[in-house]
Amino acid sequence: MSQTFVIVGGDAAGMSAASKVKRDAPETEVIVFEKGQWVSYAACGMPYYVKGDVESLEDLVAVTPEEFVEERDVDLRLGHEVVAVDADARTVTVEADGESFEQPYDTLLIGTGAHAIVPPFEGTDLDGVFTIHDMDSARAIREALGVDAAPGADLGDMGYGAEAAEYTDMAAPDTVAVVGGGYVGVEMAEAFAAHDLEVHLFEMLPHVLQPFGEAAAEVVEDHLREQGVHLHLETRVEAFEGEGRVQRVVTEDGETPADLVVVGVGVAPNVDLAEDAGIELGPTGAIATDEYGRTSAEDVFAAGDCAEATNTVTGEPDHVPLALTANRAGRAIGQTVAGDPTPVGETAGTATVKAFDLEVARTGVIDDEEARDAGFDPVSVTITAPSRAHYYPGGSELTITMVADGPTGTLLGASIVGGEDVPKRVDTVAAALHAGMTVDEVENLDLAYAPPFSPVWDPVLTAAKVLAGKVEAARETAEA
Amino acid sequence: MSQTFVIVGGDAAGMSAASKVKRDAPETEVIVFEKGQWVSYAACGMPYYVKGDVESLEDLVAVTPEEFVEERDVDLRLGHEVVAVDADARTVTVEADGESFEQPYDTLLIGTGAHAIVPPFEGTDLDGVFTIHDMDSARAIREALGVDAAPGADLGDMGYGAEAAEYTDMAAPDTVAVVGGGYVGVEMAEAFAAHDLEVHLFEMLPHVLQPFGEAAAEVVEDHLREQGVHLHLETRVEAFEGEGRVQRVVTEDGETPADLVVVGVGVAPNVDLAEDAGIELGPTGAIATDEYGRTSAEDVFAAGDCAEATNTVTGEPDHVPLALTANRAGRAIGQTVAGDPTPVGETAGTATVKAFDLEVARTGVIDDEEARDAGFDPVSVTITAPSRAHYYPGGSELTITMVADGPTGTLLGASIVGGEDVPKRVDTVAAALHAGMTVDEVENLDLAYAPPFSPVWDPVLTAAKVLAGKVEAARETAEA
Repeated sequence: MSQTFVIVGGDAAGMSAASKVKRDAPETEVIVFEKGQWVSYAACGMPYYVKGDVESLEDLVAVTPEEFVEERDVDLRLGHEVVAVDADARTVTVEADGESFEQPYDTLLIGTGAHAIVPPFEGTDLDGVFTIHDMDSARAIREALGVDAAPGADLGDMGYGAEAAEYTDMAAPDTVAVVGGGYVGVEMAEAFAAHDLEVHLFEMLPHVLQPFGEAAAEVVEDHLREQGVHLHLETRVEAFEGEGRVQRVVTEDGETPADLVVVGVGVAPNVDLAEDAGIELGPTGAIATDEYGRTSAEDVFAAGDCAEATNTVTGEPDHVPLALTANRAGRAIGQTVAGDPTPVGETAGTATVKAFDLEVARTGVIDDEEARDAGFDPVSVTITAPSRAHYYPGGSELTITMVADGPTGTLLGASIVGGEDVPKRVDTVAAALHAGMTVDEVENLDLAYAPPFSPVWDPVLTAAKVLAGKVEAARETAEA
Repeated sequence: MSQTFVIVGGDAAGMSAASKVKRDAPETEVIVFEKGQWVSYAACGMPYYVKGDVESLEDLVAVTPEEFVEERDVDLRLGHEVVAVDADARTVTVEADGESFEQPYDTLLIGTGAHAIVPPFEGTDLDGVFTIHDMDSARAIREALGVDAAPGADLGDMGYGAEAAEYTDMAAPDTVAVVGGGYVGVEMAEAFAAHDLEVHLFEMLPHVLQPFGEAAAEVVEDHLREQGVHLHLETRVEAFEGEGRVQRVVTEDGETPADLVVVGVGVAPNVDLAEDAGIELGPTGAIATDEYGRTSAEDVFAAGDCAEATNTVTGEPDHVPLALTANRAGRAIGQTVAGDPTPVGETAGTATVKAFDLEVARTGVIDDEEARDAGFDPVSVTITAPSRAHYYPGGSELTITMVADGPTGTLLGASIVGGEDVPKRVDTVAAALHAGMTVDEVENLDLAYAPPFSPVWDPVLTAAKVLAGKVEAARETAEA
């Protein structure tokens, strides 16, 4: 008898699961309820659409709804919102077009994603104030910049272009404010600068890109300033003000004019549906899952930005709302549902971002306090080294912070910033983290060398070598 | 009482050991005998000096003789050749300036390097025929091209510029032949093409870059042809001919004009000194060493291009005459001699080369026969995938071959070719090889994703995913 696999949410986790089940067990009935109109889209690409590197928002869609339905035989229902789960009865309650119905399932996947956090102050509802976590706002921001947001199409006809259409006849901005110096904030600063706008970036912490560590952040901050971005660090925004449309950002230090504002202060997992159904949340506030992505409710899985994953360094639950984690977990759950139990994989918290001409990336645990909380006694080094052989033209200086546990020498994490080959160098460190290597082992990795690509000792090896020396010295001091 | 550490050979392995001992145990007397005039030079940089990317040969020197002597307190003797080792008496016989003397040692390091293989046919002694394994010939090649080989200096005054000085007044070549399609051959083809010469590349095997596998080789060959290089594959060179200076290359297929020839058919370890002293060679023909770089003779170490290293995939002795292996082993031996026993590390056979606008890299075991010889039952896949998110501008198609052992799923190796971020992607695979990961584990690595740097599933992950599927399918077939 064919099973019914119901999926809530049609983005990375949900659609990966749907596709995998239909490939491995085509007899399974797969129903996806998506409350919006977009599926399987690359949220990470939105800054590049606003910047203009990507012409059309539709380019960000990996697989269209039609392809899911016609080629992959997925029963995809757009505009359908799941409002309740009854895990005992194995049904979900669905609302669409003002109607409501019950849908039975054998297996359920909750892939409800996350939402952009809107800060609790005045003016966030003004015209010209955006978050950038859904496709509609990306379209509206680009239209607001005076750049055609849907080349060759009529926004008014698009259904989901309504928000953008409001901006078609408004004046384009001169000054924009970006609130939050995380990935999205830094990427949006680059996007706006490409339109020759005056860009102000507000961050309440002492540094941008907090998860990348202080050394990387300082290099990025210098570069942002060189690129003309006005950085307001350790500056808490208190309100947005304006008449209908935003005109200024108010902070404790005063007012900054801004005719367009993007708020990128983080995301929070969409857990209401799960919580209302009595499904357990974890310590991070996202849905608790086991190594197969199973929740506390029988035959109910969760994956993607709404769910936790296990951190490979700490062994503890973590919440890393990034694309690869979602895609991988969705695919693994699809495989499990199709009859081949498959772990969803662990996260190393690996992340990377482009900041104008710089690349910055991180993996594992690099923050001292975070390391101590996880029971480690961290030792860290920060080095700079050239990306290529000293005599080979071009290249860039890289700054690497690498962290190990002092007593065991186990590698805990690293961040790198520089002009080239940064994320791939972090990938090597990520592989070492998954393997639980010591810094001595990292120092002895046989990495690829040729003069155009690295010094004989790649900067990753040099960092490990210096860190190994420091770990050894610390151990000798402890023994003496 | 202070020890005497004698080192034979002043390049990567020897000078790394010398520096490390003097840093960690400064009381040690360190004597380095180098028969030539160059120390601590980057042989890998020579093609770029010939090309013109590197202005001066001296730029390739990492640390000068003066720095070793004055800053690092190393007793460096240039023009001193060690002609015999008496391991029982713990002495070496040294020749210099027509004199000979005995030098006692407590510990000895043999770092005699390798030499370019000169094929056994007529005409290799003609003017205009070069190997590219020492600095003198690199300088002579550049002078022969009609490009000033020593800007600001007089070749005649340099001592070691004599070979180059012969070419100062000779006519520059129009057509060059490169014999051998390995790294050096491919790099030299690029170097000569940069001088607008007609370049013929001869390779007796069916493909260039044999250790990188067929899929990578084919991509490189197409690119070399696009760049105007005349490829002569499966073509055995039989002689060089000319009157005093080379004028043509003779093959079984006929004659090709060439007024300059570079032979790059590989290197062989310099083992005569060790062999004459009764020190054991290994199965590869290089000096056998243990995990600390010790030879069969007491207190005699060997490292670098003359010595074997353990392959991390097969666990067997291997001969990988590359810079990192030499530097690392030298440094580890220096540390051991200074009183802190340190393994020299294992090799994964990782290598990379730039070929015009392409990057190609490899690690581990990718050849079917080599895998079977090592006791594996290899399963392999070749995939192509984009280097960046599908919607992000630029980027390049990557071709990846990945190999695993069928019965265990253990990763054995990979090669990658493409336009960007190739060697660093191979580094991730190399780290996985050192860790002994299965393909399932590689598939689950948490690698860095952002649209400018990779698709959500990096091509390395995609290759592992496809390979894992093939391994699984093969296992199911075997069980059925």
